[in-house]
Amino acid sequence: MTAETIVSIDPSTGAEVEEVATATTREELEEVCRSAAEEFAELAQRDRAFRGELLRDLADAMEDRRADIVSLGVRETGLTRPRLEGELTRTVYQARVFADVVDEGGYLEATIDHAGDTPMGPAPDLRRLLVPTGPVAVFGASNFPLAFSVPGGDTMSALAAGCPVVVKAHDSHPALSVLVHGILSAAAGAAGAPAGTIGLVHGREAGARLVQHPAISAVGFTGSLDGGRALMRLIEQRPTPIPFFGELASLNPVIVTQAAAAARGEAFAAGLVTSLTGSGGQLCTKPGLVLVPHGPAGDALVDAAGAQPAAALLNARIRDGYEGTSAELRCVPGLRVVAEGEKPAGDGFAVAPRLLTMQARDLARAQIGECFGPTTIVARYTEAELVDVITGLPGSLTATIHSEPGEDVNVVVPALLPKAGRLLFDGFPTGVSVSWAQHHGGPWPATNTQHTSVGPTSIRRFLRPVTWQSAPAEVLPRELQDTYTSIPRRVDGRLIVPASTDQEGTR
Amino acid sequence: MTAETIVSIDPSTGAEVEEVATATTREELEEVCRSAAEEFAELAQRDRAFRGELLRDLADAMEDRRADIVSLGVRETGLTRPRLEGELTRTVYQARVFADVVDEGGYLEATIDHAGDTPMGPAPDLRRLLVPTGPVAVFGASNFPLAFSVPGGDTMSALAAGCPVVVKAHDSHPALSVLVHGILSAAAGAAGAPAGTIGLVHGREAGARLVQHPAISAVGFTGSLDGGRALMRLIEQRPTPIPFFGELASLNPVIVTQAAAAARGEAFAAGLVTSLTGSGGQLCTKPGLVLVPHGPAGDALVDAAGAQPAAALLNARIRDGYEGTSAELRCVPGLRVVAEGEKPAGDGFAVAPRLLTMQARDLARAQIGECFGPTTIVARYTEAELVDVITGLPGSLTATIHSEPGEDVNVVVPALLPKAGRLLFDGFPTGVSVSWAQHHGGPWPATNTQHTSVGPTSIRRFLRPVTWQSAPAEVLPRELQDTYTSIPRRVDGRLIVPASTDQEGTR
Repeated sequence: MTAETIVSIDPSTGAEVEEVATATTREELEEVCRSAAEEFAELAQRDRAFRGELLRDLADAMEDRRADIVSLGVRETGLTRPRLEGELTRTVYQARVFADVVDEGGYLEATIDHAGDTPMGPAPDLRRLLVPTGPVAVFGASNFPLAFSVPGGDTMSALAAGCPVVVKAHDSHPALSVLVHGILSAAAGAAGAPAGTIGLVHGREAGARLVQHPAISAVGFTGSLDGGRALMRLIEQRPTPIPFFGELASLNPVIVTQAAAAARGEAFAAGLVTSLTGSGGQLCTKPGLVLVPHGPAGDALVDAAGAQPAAALLNARIRDGYEGTSAELRCVPGLRVVAEGEKPAGDGFAVAPRLLTMQARDLARAQIGECFGPTTIVARYTEAELVDVITGLPGSLTATIHSEPGEDVNVVVPALLPKAGRLLFDGFPTGVSVSWAQHHGGPWPATNTQHTSVGPTSIRRFLRPVTWQSAPAEVLPRELQDTYTSIPRRVDGRLIVPASTDQEGTR
Repeated sequence: MTAETIVSIDPSTGAEVEEVATATTREELEEVCRSAAEEFAELAQRDRAFRGELLRDLADAMEDRRADIVSLGVRETGLTRPRLEGELTRTVYQARVFADVVDEGGYLEATIDHAGDTPMGPAPDLRRLLVPTGPVAVFGASNFPLAFSVPGGDTMSALAAGCPVVVKAHDSHPALSVLVHGILSAAAGAAGAPAGTIGLVHGREAGARLVQHPAISAVGFTGSLDGGRALMRLIEQRPTPIPFFGELASLNPVIVTQAAAAARGEAFAAGLVTSLTGSGGQLCTKPGLVLVPHGPAGDALVDAAGAQPAAALLNARIRDGYEGTSAELRCVPGLRVVAEGEKPAGDGFAVAPRLLTMQARDLARAQIGECFGPTTIVARYTEAELVDVITGLPGSLTATIHSEPGEDVNVVVPALLPKAGRLLFDGFPTGVSVSWAQHHGGPWPATNTQHTSVGPTSIRRFLRPVTWQSAPAEVLPRELQDTYTSIPRRVDGRLIVPASTDQEGTR
């Protein structure tokens, strides 16, 4: 029996362009995981300064090969050159942000309680630090071949934490995965990192075995709800379950108040169409539901949003999923297609964008979920039913409200809070900047709620606390020694920020 | 069909003393959860100062009823009066610690990134805060009827976070659960908290339905590995999975070096016996495995540890579990009982403490796990095999090493690090103080690794991040407004600790 071949496809034609690899065999996976486990112990010997430099070297190496990366990405994903240029800029930037995070050291939550008396009696010397969990499995996303794939945020946050990574390449961009993995591996080797610090595997079976491998300590995943739940079931069957950090499905409701619809319905419609159709609607924060008031202002807004360009999707599975979900939506009682783009000719994965409308009060019964691609549902509401409608929505990465200055949103905003990880005001949810205050996560099914997959605090996913009790100074990590004062620490209950980090930080 | 009766049993005789309640019916559970969901919204309107005062009022109320609580606890659990006096002191103290944590506000991780230019382009104003997840289900533990039950750390950390709590009373101390729940509810009501802030349910079926109820946002559990896995399976079947924070099983290995065995084997043996037999060995941090070197010094240590007093266990199920596990251990090839206490006469749940020995090199094959109760296994090792033996151990809450000053432990300590949440030097793992640097958690099966169930940072389990993007000041939580500077915050990347909290804090 020969191993399954991994091929690179051109989504604009649907044609196979090249054979990239063979699916990772059971033996090869074993070797990759064994290597990652070994490198974990070796990586643990290196200090934070080494990891900061490593991350900067990885960033530089990607920047050096920008032209190759972007060209192959355009060919293999059908995403536009400006989009992939921007995505690479983001990917390089977030690697450098994590280098700064590692340097600053606040993420370690270093804590020292000296021995002393307490109302519970005498307490021993306790010192707590976050340490890396171990090798991390990262599942690359279809829709972000760089920023959420081989060189993406999961990989960089895991490396920043001190965890080796094994990436499952997405079958939508295997050639790009191999190219970038080669660039990162060479740069890591030149920086003196152990050989197995970044591993790469191909194929669905290898992915399933990866999350069950005893060497793997945590999983970062960006993909579909079904795919995520399948991996969760496999993890649940492990003798030692591990954390699964999935970024799954999100409806991203956008609410327009009556006053906002009246004051700036057309401008809103233009912004919505841009947000909705960018990258073929294949963004986790695409606005998939727009709550528009009944009445003439709302009608005008819907009319203005009607005309939309066509879009080529990333692969056959996503195209089929889009058409399948669209067909299901057409069966929802009361749902109506108000605008539909032309599907361009050709054999690629192009689809027609669609604007649908329905009554907001029917949403909960219809159990509307994400339709991945360039479709949005405009649900028409009356003021009296708005809070009930919101309460019936599933969890999302984002929720947005467009209102006019002076309008009272003190009922709507608290209703939205339990439904999303990010609340936007008068903007659109696509575009997720990388900074300390970012949160890209949300109540299920958006993610498993408590952690972000974007921004500095995403490093917490791949760390666990350890406390040293009554330890001699020579066995303590440097950051927990009394004399080490160059990182933020909590000492005997007091937060202490060193003067040296009290300067312009990473924003 | 009549509802199952919940009875209070005297573990010293095994006799039923009183009927305490009936098992919570499906309808009653529905009402408790509905109420908790309603109170969640109401509790969210209150500020941190309110929650701090509430926690202090709960602490005072328990202190006021100390005599009643301790007397009923002694009668219902068979634990000694000094033990329960100490446990209540701890329980009251940790409620007050959480009040201080809420007051300080650092746990909110308040973060502000003002709008500005970045290498990714212009970024919007982003502000991040941790907010409560929603109502929390808490499963009381058999072995800590106060500190890890109705008024325990899970309850207090959830209330501190702003989450209402529904406690599943442990059937080993239902009368104490009802008494303490009444005390807490009255105090909460007097403090102005909504009526359903702390709920109580009884019975196994109610517990199973509780973790599946849509109103419940997270589960805190202290109990057996089997019980925890059963709840995890129920949670996995939910339409919206929620986090499960389980404190399950722990072997808590203790390693004695050759030099330490020679220098202070007898003192070590005395300390071990105290740690092992306190509370009938029914402590999650009981040393269940002691690695002792071959040779005369190790032999003398084992002899010194031999004589142990008898112990009454908490309930019939724990007694049966202890005897069942002991019977299984007797079938492990090479395992030998070297000391066994007398089982006292009578109908209570008393058992004979046991000291077992085996070869350390056989541990991995024997797959030794926790034996809940007054048993420990002394495994004899040779220097050359020690690291391999450690590598084969399951995860634990703690790992301890006893060595002599100047001994090189630079190989053993890194081997222990992946196996435990707390590393102790020259002490015993029982006794878990409540302070910022504490970590009570560990690699599976000790817990699900990333969070603690003791100490201030346990509050993180019941919080999720939310980011406000481009929000008008009037909709922002107070802690995220530019003008609010009285808590630690990260602003434009810089950690800023207000002068007002730069004082003696909670240790």
